[in-house]
Amino acid sequence: MINDPSPFLSFGQLEDLSRSILRHRGLSPDHVEAVTRTIVAGERDGCASHGAYRLIVCAATLATGKVVADAEPMATSLTPALTRVDARGGYAQLAFERGLPLLIEKTRACGIGAMAISNCVHFAALWPEIEAIVAQGLVALACTPSHAWVAPAGGTRPLFGTNPIAFGWPRPGPWPFVFDFATSAVARGEIELHRRAGKPIPEGWGVDTNGEPTTDPAAAMAGAMLTFGGHKGSALSAMIELIAGPLIGDMTSAESLAADDGAGSSPIGGELIIAIDPAGFLGDATATHLQRAEALFSGITGQGARLPSQRRFEARERSLERGGVTLPKALYADLLALLD
Amino acid sequence: MINDPSPFLSFGQLEDLSRSILRHRGLSPDHVEAVTRTIVAGERDGCASHGAYRLIVCAATLATGKVVADAEPMATSLTPALTRVDARGGYAQLAFERGLPLLIEKTRACGIGAMAISNCVHFAALWPEIEAIVAQGLVALACTPSHAWVAPAGGTRPLFGTNPIAFGWPRPGPWPFVFDFATSAVARGEIELHRRAGKPIPEGWGVDTNGEPTTDPAAAMAGAMLTFGGHKGSALSAMIELIAGPLIGDMTSAESLAADDGAGSSPIGGELIIAIDPAGFLGDATATHLQRAEALFSGITGQGARLPSQRRFEARERSLERGGVTLPKALYADLLALLD
Repeated sequence: MINDPSPFLSFGQLEDLSRSILRHRGLSPDHVEAVTRTIVAGERDGCASHGAYRLIVCAATLATGKVVADAEPMATSLTPALTRVDARGGYAQLAFERGLPLLIEKTRACGIGAMAISNCVHFAALWPEIEAIVAQGLVALACTPSHAWVAPAGGTRPLFGTNPIAFGWPRPGPWPFVFDFATSAVARGEIELHRRAGKPIPEGWGVDTNGEPTTDPAAAMAGAMLTFGGHKGSALSAMIELIAGPLIGDMTSAESLAADDGAGSSPIGGELIIAIDPAGFLGDATATHLQRAEALFSGITGQGARLPSQRRFEARERSLERGGVTLPKALYADLLALLD
Repeated sequence: MINDPSPFLSFGQLEDLSRSILRHRGLSPDHVEAVTRTIVAGERDGCASHGAYRLIVCAATLATGKVVADAEPMATSLTPALTRVDARGGYAQLAFERGLPLLIEKTRACGIGAMAISNCVHFAALWPEIEAIVAQGLVALACTPSHAWVAPAGGTRPLFGTNPIAFGWPRPGPWPFVFDFATSAVARGEIELHRRAGKPIPEGWGVDTNGEPTTDPAAAMAGAMLTFGGHKGSALSAMIELIAGPLIGDMTSAESLAADDGAGSSPIGGELIIAIDPAGFLGDATATHLQRAEALFSGITGQGARLPSQRRFEARERSLERGGVTLPKALYADLLALLD
C-alpha cells in the first residue's frame, strides 16, 4: 500500500503510514497511536499544515532529542476541579488523553474544571482536544504559549508566542461550534511562504529588527511578528502566556524558545484547558437554552457569514464520503523517505 | 459642597453627589452604595465614559423603568464550583457584591470557580469586578453580551453586542495586570463622537445598511458596527454571546435589544465570571511562579510597550494624590440638574 504511487490513501492506509513512520523514528506505541489520531484528523479536515505534513516535523523534533519518545504521562487530581497531567517531556496528545477522563469527571461534579498539561511538546492544533471535550456535551476553552516570535503591541522585540486559543460549544447534529486561532496576525508559516515566493507581506504582520513596520517577509522573521487586532490581541496573547505558563508552573514562550536553544524543535511547555458543564448552570433547562444558542448560529449563517471551522467541517464531510484523503505527490514521497 | 462651582470634588464629595442623585432618582440604598463605588472608581481612574457621566445614563435608565430600582439580588450555590446570582432586574453591581464571597470561597475550595450573574442591567466596565477578585489573589476572567449592534465577520447585519471581555492577574505592588476591552472595533460612543464632530470614521469600524464598508458614522450606526480583529474578534464575540448568554440561561445581545424595545436603556442580561486560584495548581510554589510572571511584564515594559490599564492606573495614582477629581463644568452642571 505504502509503495502505491496513487496519492489517494484510505484512512486506514494513512493511519498505517503514520504509525510506520513514527515507530521507525522511535516513538513509543501509545504515543504513536495518539499522535496518529491527530495527524489523520488534521489531514481529514483539510488542514494541510496540521495533517500528514506534521510527520516531517515530528521526525525532525524526534531527531533533536527534544521530545521524550517514550514518556509516560502522569495525571494527578489536584483539587475537586483541577487536574494536572505531567507529560514528562513527551508529546501533548497522549498526556491529554490520559487526563481527559479526570477532567470530564471533575467538570461534571463541580460544574467547571480545568486541566493543566505540563512539560509537554506541542505541534498539533487545539481543536482535536476541544472536540473531544465537546463530544461529552461540555463547553471547552484551551490555550497554549509557543515560541517567542511575536512583539507586544507598541513593542519592537519578540516576547509572545503565536499563542493559539480555541473554544468549543456542543450543538445538535454532527458539527459543534469550534474556533481555534493563533493570536499572532498570521501563522509564522504564512510569512515563510511569502518569503519563498518573493512576495511582500501586508502591513500589520511584522516589524523589522528596529521595530519599524515592514512588508519584507525576511525582515519580519528576523524582527518580530505582530499580534492580530492591535493592543486587544496583544492583551489576549499576554493572558495566554500567563494562564498557560506561570499559572500552571510552566514556561512562557520566551522560556520555551530559550530551552529550544536553537534546535528548531516544536515548542515545549504547558497548556491550560477549561471545561464547563452547561447542566451545572442550567439543570433541567439545558436542552432549552442550548436550543437558544442555535438562534445565534442561524443569525450568523442566515446573513451569509461563515461559522468558524465551517470550511474544516466541509472538508471532513468530503473526506468521510471518500473514505480517505489525497496527499500531494511530493509530500507523499517525503513521507515515504522518512521510512528509510 | 454640591453647590460649589469649583470643578474639583474630593472623593467624599463625589460619593455624596452620586448618592444624592441616585437616591433622588429612586434607587434603593444598597444599590446606591454599590453603583456609587463603581462611578467613583471610574472617575478616579480617568475613565470619563464610566465615571460620573454614567449617572446621567443611570437616571435615564431608571426613568424608563427598565431597571428594578429596589431589586434584592439572590445568590445561590449551584454546584461545588458554580454560583448564580439572580439580580432580579436590578443593576449588576450589587448582585456581584452579594455573590462575590461565594465565588471566592468556592474558587479556593475547588481551584476554579464560576459565577453567573443573571437578569441584571449593565452599564459599568468589568474591571472593577475583576480587580475585586484579583485583590483576593485570584486570577479572573469576565464577559458579558450587550445590545446587538455588531455584525459577525463576513456578515452585514447587527447580531453581536460590543461584548466586553476582561481579565486580571495578581501582582506584587499596588497595580494588578488587568485588561478590559470591547470585542467591537471601537466603542459605540466613539462612532457617535465622530458623527457629532462631522468627521469620517476609519474603515473597519462599520458597514452601512447594505453591508458595504463605510466611513460615514451615521451610516455605520444605522447599519452595523464591526468586531476588532476580523474573523478572530468575531469568533471571540460569538463565544461571549454563548457563555454569558445561553450557557447561564440568559439573553443574547439580540434578545437584550429586543427586550429593550426601543427604550434606549442599558443592556439587560447576564455576565459570566471565572476565577482561578493559582495555589490550586501551584501549591507552595505559587509565589515563585507569580514572580516568573513579572519577567513577562518586564519584557513588555522593558521594550517601551505599555501594559493594559497602565494609563488608568497612572490616572488613579494622580487622583489618589489629589484626594479627588476634577469634573468638566458642563458635566457638573448636568449632574446638579439631576437633583431637580
